[in-house]
Amino acid sequence: MPSSSDNASQHSLSDSNAIIQALDSGKNKRARKLLARMHPGKIAALLERLDTEQRLRLWQQIGPEVEERTLHHLSPSLRAQLAGDSAEASITASDEPDNSNTSQLEAVRQALTQGKLKRLGKLLHRMHPAKVAGLLEAMPPAERNRAWSMVETERAGKVLTYLHDEIRTALALELDPEDLIAATAQLELDDRVDLIQALPAKLGNQLLHASSTAQRQQLESMLSYPEDSAGGLMNADPIQVRADVQAGAVLRYLRLLERLPPQTDLLMVVDRKGHYQGALRLSELVTAELDQRVSELMHHDIAGIVVTTNSNEVAQLFQDHDLLSAPVVDEHNRLLGRITVDDVIDLIRENSDRALMHMAGLDDEADIFAPVLVSARRRALWLGINLITAFGAAWVIGLFQATLEQLVALAVLMPIVASMGGIAGSQTLTLVIRGLALGQVQKGNIRILLNRELGISILNGILWSVVIALLAVAWFGNWGIGAVLGAAILLNLLCATLSGWGIPLLLHRMGIDPALAGSVILTTVTDVIGFFAFLGLATLLLL
Amino acid sequence: MPSSSDNASQHSLSDSNAIIQALDSGKNKRARKLLARMHPGKIAALLERLDTEQRLRLWQQIGPEVEERTLHHLSPSLRAQLAGDSAEASITASDEPDNSNTSQLEAVRQALTQGKLKRLGKLLHRMHPAKVAGLLEAMPPAERNRAWSMVETERAGKVLTYLHDEIRTALALELDPEDLIAATAQLELDDRVDLIQALPAKLGNQLLHASSTAQRQQLESMLSYPEDSAGGLMNADPIQVRADVQAGAVLRYLRLLERLPPQTDLLMVVDRKGHYQGALRLSELVTAELDQRVSELMHHDIAGIVVTTNSNEVAQLFQDHDLLSAPVVDEHNRLLGRITVDDVIDLIRENSDRALMHMAGLDDEADIFAPVLVSARRRALWLGINLITAFGAAWVIGLFQATLEQLVALAVLMPIVASMGGIAGSQTLTLVIRGLALGQVQKGNIRILLNRELGISILNGILWSVVIALLAVAWFGNWGIGAVLGAAILLNLLCATLSGWGIPLLLHRMGIDPALAGSVILTTVTDVIGFFAFLGLATLLLL
Repeated sequence: MPSSSDNASQHSLSDSNAIIQALDSGKNKRARKLLARMHPGKIAALLERLDTEQRLRLWQQIGPEVEERTLHHLSPSLRAQLAGDSAEASITASDEPDNSNTSQLEAVRQALTQGKLKRLGKLLHRMHPAKVAGLLEAMPPAERNRAWSMVETERAGKVLTYLHDEIRTALALELDPEDLIAATAQLELDDRVDLIQALPAKLGNQLLHASSTAQRQQLESMLSYPEDSAGGLMNADPIQVRADVQAGAVLRYLRLLERLPPQTDLLMVVDRKGHYQGALRLSELVTAELDQRVSELMHHDIAGIVVTTNSNEVAQLFQDHDLLSAPVVDEHNRLLGRITVDDVIDLIRENSDRALMHMAGLDDEADIFAPVLVSARRRALWLGINLITAFGAAWVIGLFQATLEQLVALAVLMPIVASMGGIAGSQTLTLVIRGLALGQVQKGNIRILLNRELGISILNGILWSVVIALLAVAWFGNWGIGAVLGAAILLNLLCATLSGWGIPLLLHRMGIDPALAGSVILTTVTDVIGFFAFLGLATLLLL
Repeated sequence: MPSSSDNASQHSLSDSNAIIQALDSGKNKRARKLLARMHPGKIAALLERLDTEQRLRLWQQIGPEVEERTLHHLSPSLRAQLAGDSAEASITASDEPDNSNTSQLEAVRQALTQGKLKRLGKLLHRMHPAKVAGLLEAMPPAERNRAWSMVETERAGKVLTYLHDEIRTALALELDPEDLIAATAQLELDDRVDLIQALPAKLGNQLLHASSTAQRQQLESMLSYPEDSAGGLMNADPIQVRADVQAGAVLRYLRLLERLPPQTDLLMVVDRKGHYQGALRLSELVTAELDQRVSELMHHDIAGIVVTTNSNEVAQLFQDHDLLSAPVVDEHNRLLGRITVDDVIDLIRENSDRALMHMAGLDDEADIFAPVLVSARRRALWLGINLITAFGAAWVIGLFQATLEQLVALAVLMPIVASMGGIAGSQTLTLVIRGLALGQVQKGNIRILLNRELGISILNGILWSVVIALLAVAWFGNWGIGAVLGAAILLNLLCATLSGWGIPLLLHRMGIDPALAGSVILTTVTDVIGFFAFLGLATLLLL
């Protein structure tokens, strides 16, 4: 497909065909690239040749630079028609979506359904890449791909960095490999590493090999660290200075650099062998006297983070010390790179998000508009696991069929026992899961926590079991049923609390995410114990 | 209680009594303050007079500065005893808790229970205030107060800023008002504002009036904005420069300031009337030529955040634009202050934390070691609400008592229907709650989302209702029961999905937190519909 621009004219016919093909398959980026090397006269000729639908689709891909000149070559009737379409595409003040009631999402989807891709391109062009990413995530896949094809290649790389894993990979694969390379060429190395890790190995390798040798070495060393370590968060771009130079010299050096890496608030002080010695705050460098030495100004207490440190610990360090960036060192204290707070923010958000989603058996990185079949399969697993617990509960009830036949009121009341246990248990469970994540719950205080939780559930158990028992007595006029119900609820609340406390601690120790498995196991326990206690006591005492 | 140091000797007896009183009531901070103005000889005399227990408690509060001199005044036997205690309190290398197996929490609690408060004070002194805050949160209230009394007053203010609301207020109230004022004097204004808002009005006012006039004015203006607005996050300390000066002049000006506020990465460019014009990055100032003007260097696209902007929008801005700090302006674009990323991180963490806790009906700012009675009362409410839904479900079952009497297998199987519906519904619910928070779910795509979720639940409904029906047939040998069970589950999954989608959207529009109320309402729906569908169909078809 590549053709040098010298003999482009000989290729114009095949170019035209390639353009039509690209348009038909929704590869608007490729179509625009092909159009960019065609003469406006040729484009006009192609437009004349097409049917109305294809013509309009082609017109949507012609950029503002050549629009005028292409119009010039067209027949008058066609010119009027296409010029009119372009006028419609322009965004007037009243279209500004920020403050109006129609949301940006609606504006974008409207432009898509009406085929006004030129207008869509303009809308997207005015948005920050993060906003574009947000909109893409809020669209179903077919629309998303069409909108994606209208994002300029040079902005596409930045947009990719703001997407959740699943969508990021899918959209990166939508691009031609050469476009993907062009799109990611301007990205910071840590963003490029994330992307390479998310892509299939072959494409990731292509991306890696398209980098300059120096960058490739850095990328390869960054790729060698696990994603959830300090190394995986690290960028290899710290500004390094020596301890024995004066502030004035550092300032002159920075002026020579012309540009500092984004989010630079610290300069790293290293010795001749690259060992990290301390950090110099930019805000203190600018207030220092010019003849002060770096060694007087630098902070020794900004410790280097060892490259293998777990990313959650890194996040905690940033939060506790209000860091904006921090040095990363190897096991010999040699400076490797730095971590910036923007990546830590993403990590913190993802971590809390994950607990919420995992508690419902959902994947936090999945596309919420993934194909129905894909999502259905993912969720089927969770329902299947739950089914086992539900049948477990049913089996317990089945043990007491004879009892139920004699006293059908028990069947009416038994869901109350399971439900109250489930609620009380999930409160303790959530508290412990969150406490483990925040470090509030540790080996040194788990017993105290258990005592407290048991105390709470005894108080609430007594209160509510009495209330429920009285309600049941009022309903069925049977003191025995009330007593059995109350006793079962009290017992189930205690077991629920014990499980809500013990299950996450056990899972945590086994290295299993307590948010993911905790609630299913808890429900099983509260259902089984609730039904067993209620129906068992009834069998013993009421028959 | 205040006594001038001139006539301190006349007050020494009453001082002694005050010290004993302070010690007895756990007010170690006050005891230390009183001790600080006593002569070592007097302290020694007091020590001699006390019984062993009180003497040891007093000794724990004597600082290292006067320890030597006090020992000198003591009788030999007492000297040996107390010197030995001090030697024990020193922290040796093997005590370093960071890398050892005994956690810091255990070390601190051990020191507490053994009454080695001197050692405790040293342990706490070596920790970062954020770590101290974390440890305090991980302790039951009685221990926490004792540990708190050993935190130096000058560090106590910083520790307070890292605590969750409930504990922060409680510990601030533990301090004498004058100590609280001293402790918070060094805090940044935004942290002081947070604290004043958390305190009872009277104490908050005292804190406010203890500030210098200039600070008080700033504090008062900051207090006038709601906590969840840009104004509530704002600090009133931006460095301001004019657009027409040269980079060299700005650098000279900064050198005169000697110290920039923490987390300064931007200088704010304002005109003579204080209107915000743009921002100058420190990292670009240091790389600029000295004769370049600020107007050439500054960024016009770093927009001022209007002071009334909702804090969630502020957080989104920081995340999307990778900001470290941002200017805050009034409605006339006059610069009021700036927001720094450390406060935004706290906000992001709290927000995600809140959703998780609210879904279990818990308060994310509450002390997990609050007195049992307090916690029990809070959770009782949630159990009570749940009880209403549980009785609703029981009432539905009650309608079908006659059916259940004839076919007790229904009672065995009915929890399965409710449970499957609950799981499927809570998946959709969580997805929508999180999508609303992230902006993935908006007016423009809620219908698509519903279609997808319904599609998923139809697929899974068919799959699992067939599986469950076959299992039920195998169990009870009755095709009718299987058919009714399957149909009820399919129906309940569909209703659960519809509710999981609709309830949070409705609550969101009504301004109610969908995480807090959503799951209770959803469970009610899935229970009621599940039981009704199953028993209703059985009554119609099987009897």
